[in-house]
Amino acid sequence: MTNSAASLEPLFHPSSVAVIGASADPAKLGGRSLRNLLQQPFPGPVYAINSRAEQVQGVPAYPSITAVPQPVDLAVVVVPGESVVTAIEQCAERGVKSAIVFSSGFAEVDEKGRAAQARLTAIARASGMRILGPNCMGVFDPARHLYATFSASFDQGVPKVGPIGIASQSGAFGAYCFVVARERGLGLSLWATTGNECDVDIAECLEFMAHDPGTKVVLGYLEGCRDKGRLIRALEAMAAKRKPLVMLKVGRSDVGAQAAASHTASLAGSDRVYDGLFRQYGVHRAESLEDLMDIGYACTAGRFPTAGRVGLVSISGGVGVLMADAARAAGLEVPAMPQAAQDKLKALLPYAAVRNPGDATGQVLADLGLLGANLEVMYREGGCDAVVVFLGTVGINPVLMPKLTDSLIGLRKRFPDPVAVVCMLSKPDLAQPLEDAGYLVIEDATRGIQSVAALVEYGRYFARPRDAGALPPLPRPAALPKGPIGEFEAKRILKDAGIPIAPERLARSAQEARQAAEHIGYPVVLKIASPDIAHKSEMGGVLLGVADSAEAALGFDLLLERARDAAPDARVDGVLVAPQVQGGVEALLGVHRDPVFGPVVVFGLGGIYVEVLNDIALRIAPFGVDEARRMVREIKAFPLLDGARGRPKADVEALAQTLSRLSLFAAAQADHLQSLDINPFIVLPEGQGGLAVDALIVSRS
Amino acid sequence: MTNSAASLEPLFHPSSVAVIGASADPAKLGGRSLRNLLQQPFPGPVYAINSRAEQVQGVPAYPSITAVPQPVDLAVVVVPGESVVTAIEQCAERGVKSAIVFSSGFAEVDEKGRAAQARLTAIARASGMRILGPNCMGVFDPARHLYATFSASFDQGVPKVGPIGIASQSGAFGAYCFVVARERGLGLSLWATTGNECDVDIAECLEFMAHDPGTKVVLGYLEGCRDKGRLIRALEAMAAKRKPLVMLKVGRSDVGAQAAASHTASLAGSDRVYDGLFRQYGVHRAESLEDLMDIGYACTAGRFPTAGRVGLVSISGGVGVLMADAARAAGLEVPAMPQAAQDKLKALLPYAAVRNPGDATGQVLADLGLLGANLEVMYREGGCDAVVVFLGTVGINPVLMPKLTDSLIGLRKRFPDPVAVVCMLSKPDLAQPLEDAGYLVIEDATRGIQSVAALVEYGRYFARPRDAGALPPLPRPAALPKGPIGEFEAKRILKDAGIPIAPERLARSAQEARQAAEHIGYPVVLKIASPDIAHKSEMGGVLLGVADSAEAALGFDLLLERARDAAPDARVDGVLVAPQVQGGVEALLGVHRDPVFGPVVVFGLGGIYVEVLNDIALRIAPFGVDEARRMVREIKAFPLLDGARGRPKADVEALAQTLSRLSLFAAAQADHLQSLDINPFIVLPEGQGGLAVDALIVSRS
Repeated sequence: MTNSAASLEPLFHPSSVAVIGASADPAKLGGRSLRNLLQQPFPGPVYAINSRAEQVQGVPAYPSITAVPQPVDLAVVVVPGESVVTAIEQCAERGVKSAIVFSSGFAEVDEKGRAAQARLTAIARASGMRILGPNCMGVFDPARHLYATFSASFDQGVPKVGPIGIASQSGAFGAYCFVVARERGLGLSLWATTGNECDVDIAECLEFMAHDPGTKVVLGYLEGCRDKGRLIRALEAMAAKRKPLVMLKVGRSDVGAQAAASHTASLAGSDRVYDGLFRQYGVHRAESLEDLMDIGYACTAGRFPTAGRVGLVSISGGVGVLMADAARAAGLEVPAMPQAAQDKLKALLPYAAVRNPGDATGQVLADLGLLGANLEVMYREGGCDAVVVFLGTVGINPVLMPKLTDSLIGLRKRFPDPVAVVCMLSKPDLAQPLEDAGYLVIEDATRGIQSVAALVEYGRYFARPRDAGALPPLPRPAALPKGPIGEFEAKRILKDAGIPIAPERLARSAQEARQAAEHIGYPVVLKIASPDIAHKSEMGGVLLGVADSAEAALGFDLLLERARDAAPDARVDGVLVAPQVQGGVEALLGVHRDPVFGPVVVFGLGGIYVEVLNDIALRIAPFGVDEARRMVREIKAFPLLDGARGRPKADVEALAQTLSRLSLFAAAQADHLQSLDINPFIVLPEGQGGLAVDALIVSRS
Repeated sequence: MTNSAASLEPLFHPSSVAVIGASADPAKLGGRSLRNLLQQPFPGPVYAINSRAEQVQGVPAYPSITAVPQPVDLAVVVVPGESVVTAIEQCAERGVKSAIVFSSGFAEVDEKGRAAQARLTAIARASGMRILGPNCMGVFDPARHLYATFSASFDQGVPKVGPIGIASQSGAFGAYCFVVARERGLGLSLWATTGNECDVDIAECLEFMAHDPGTKVVLGYLEGCRDKGRLIRALEAMAAKRKPLVMLKVGRSDVGAQAAASHTASLAGSDRVYDGLFRQYGVHRAESLEDLMDIGYACTAGRFPTAGRVGLVSISGGVGVLMADAARAAGLEVPAMPQAAQDKLKALLPYAAVRNPGDATGQVLADLGLLGANLEVMYREGGCDAVVVFLGTVGINPVLMPKLTDSLIGLRKRFPDPVAVVCMLSKPDLAQPLEDAGYLVIEDATRGIQSVAALVEYGRYFARPRDAGALPPLPRPAALPKGPIGEFEAKRILKDAGIPIAPERLARSAQEARQAAEHIGYPVVLKIASPDIAHKSEMGGVLLGVADSAEAALGFDLLLERARDAAPDARVDGVLVAPQVQGGVEALLGVHRDPVFGPVVVFGLGGIYVEVLNDIALRIAPFGVDEARRMVREIKAFPLLDGARGRPKADVEALAQTLSRLSLFAAAQADHLQSLDINPFIVLPEGQGGLAVDALIVSRS
């Protein structure tokens, strides 16, 4: 655990708690906050801070935190916004180790609120006291009976103790999640909401949960992150502990991002960057609240297979087909059962489909032994990483369900390894014994399949050798010239960074152009060389297919003439002479600077279709070749690099090497680089590498 | 109602029913079938056919159907497979009007079964008696208390009477749907499962439901359709009655399609064709069981707006952002509230976000009047077609919920028109009053938004002027030459069909080539003209940019030489001389023949990206210009035609005209046309039309 996560111990595991602004009236926030703490058997002392009483709700009251005679680990602050700073100052003075500020009226409201919040941050930094909030709903820990929150949702019960941690920037969202979890019977380990994040942020809470032994899976809600380093450290800690993180990140759309910015004070990076980050760190990005809860639930089974072969059995042939469709759409395999297994199944169920998906037919409900035997063959001989069985509405049938449960539990004991999912309409009490035996019970068959796919994604991520992620040391950043850097210079810089560059020469006269072309071999390409002309093609600054020495000399003069016409003030270095690359696939490799995450590497194929369809992959720099390989395979147009429609396979390995090197360069130059485009980068056929044909770098001025 | 649908009256609304194979033991299918009929107060007589008893389950028994003294509208056949044909023969003899065959062992099993099924079909055709099944689960009609099915699912209760019809090719699937509907409290009108479809098919059941006054929305389950005409007639009947159809069609994937083919005996058309058909006829294709039920439920509100402006209010700012993201992803608008309305809301809730999505904050739960006032402003001044409000977990709170319900019901009375959705965790009894008042209560916020989007799609479909779909009469089919038809002849045929063709001339000598080129004007394109050379470019049979008369003559000789080398046996008509078209966007227009649906028109942009990404739109021929306009807008790359990235807008109207004309031609030639490709069709800038540059037709040999 890092110091940062360890410093949250007094927040999540306090020995003593004081409520500043405690009230006797549970209808008020200050009353409810105290009541939540007292209703459960929290073992440590609880103090009320209230200047007008000696006791509040039966606990000793003090006029201020400084008057409390014993040490206080956690202060819960429920005073009006304008009194918060004073209360927090007193906490720091008193040596309180952590504080939670529920009060709102800070950076989310106006300039004055922003100033007050900055003051809280300053106190936290100066004193070492960790502050959660303001404008948050606090934390709770069911195992320790700690409920440091003003949520009113405990009226219908506290959650079960269990493996799920919830970390949310929004209090209301966090409260909703925990109630849904409780109603679904899911057990929780820790719950934290961070609000305005004047000090403690969601990344630190995630890191704390990564190290918390009771937490096995974390559900997160994110609007934006401020500190790249903390977030990545948290994600790495989750991965090191093999704990899946399911994240709902809002603000994907234009309207959504606008609303998110007005809702919190977060500096949200571009949403696309989060997509890249989540892929890079094995985070499942939830599409909806339902998806967040469903995948979180699926993770509680603790099975993360590294391959995606699913066996499907259904009492309705139609749903079997539906599940097969869903499996293929989710990237899972539905392998045919071995012939010997099919023969055995056919002997059991003459009218059944046995290939996979298996249609056990409704007949098995009349003879449950048949279903068990069917599943047994699939488990024993199907070589499946997951088995999903659709049982219709059996889960609400009080006669059939117990018999079926016995049979399924017996199977699970004999075959404990594959992910086992039962899809059916069910009632919680009838489904519970199956869940206790390690089955996932998921009503919708498609969601059952999608859950398996998410588990396989986690499994593959966890199985990546951690040290394969180790990167070579970043190159020493050389000073970049200021502003836009023209093609010739940009390529020199990239060549030093290990990017393959088409061999080319700078010609300063028609004579030099002819000599260079002869040295390179015809046909060649001539390009105007000027740091001030970024879009050469548009001013006619590129001549393709220059076939002989006469054309080379004439071309030189023509390009200089065009440059004079189009950009009279441009500095012109001369003309670049390069071989005309034949064949290969045009790609675009770029770096852009995200305000939160710094340099981000973007990859896509060339051409306007890809731009219009926005078919790109993106990663935060730096990353290794292995990550780059996944990145290349992520775009929809990947088949074009993979030999689609009779084309030669492209040198994807060289492309991945280049992307990784580019990311190392970008990371090394993070402070100086504004943007970088290699467009096109020609990916040549397999074994022949690739070549940067044009490049432009813009450094930060 | 057509004769076909009317002939199903005795099946769905029989006055009398006989169960052939009736048993006294409800554990047997023949016993359960009779019990299902008798447990509910079906008003007509029920007879048991059983040779060994005088009474079965209290109703008079007869040794055979011919012995029943009174007329029988519906015979339910539950005898073993080998006795079915005899039983059905006797029914026909006795003048029974309709029959349902539950028994399996027919076309789904083997050749013998196929023959027996064909015999059933023949009896139906000869006698006029309509037969449902075999291998089906029958029908039920809760309003008429008719339960002609062996389903065991009535043990936990019969469904409510309500607006939803269910038509399923699979019995098990249909049974599952009805139980899920019952558990969700959804009311049903009619339920039909069609199994092997020896006579009555799902399309006829859909058409019957379209005309059934009690049915307002239909959920369908489809593996494949055999009769295009019946299906389209059913879809047109649904549209004419403004009844939404939600369809789950399985077999999307390779594995799924394979399993579907083995599961039923359906001749399934290509799955992509169904996508086109469903778009053409306003059918929502459900992605999952959950989606099927959710959209079906949403339709029961009976509101189908024609525009998609949604107002969003949330007690959690985060969920507001999530809903806005979901709305944009679903193609809905989230318009900013007018400034005056924002000012009013700000006065009500100073800390709230008021732009849309509105964040009413948790505060409104403490002061419900605030929420009502907030929604009132949004309804009155927001100009919304739908209002979606997220209320967290209030729906399980027995104290808050009744108060909130009063407020929301009052609002609904004042603003009854927009679709109104409440997203919250809820308990059925607490949510029911809201539903009775016309609210949709949907737990997941994202699914709430997606449901609104589906209702808007239906609304737009229903709002299409029905007569705008009227097509000009199909052209009289001219005889097509057999086999592949080369470019020159193909273009002549297409020109007659009203497709714009690049002007071109066939040259039979170098001299003619020169003359043609001079007449057309340089630059021209030369193309080898041969019915036997389909892929001209690949053998070097196309010369671009031919600039003068010398090049034209040389080019003629070169192409003939190349043709002789590459395809010595090809018949060569000469060389086509055409203007070189400048600018425009390359599109691909094709027709292919689907085994079920006949000629299908395919549209996509040219180029390998579009092929790899499979970005095409598809419709069943014939269709009008209006449908073609939607088709063009459906592809992901549409922005390229719409002026993306500074390009001129393309003449989409000319493209749509061409697609519609092509569909008329294809429909007229349905019996003779195997395939047709116009590749490329150049869509010129707006107002300049388009041109077929190359074409190939293959007629059926």
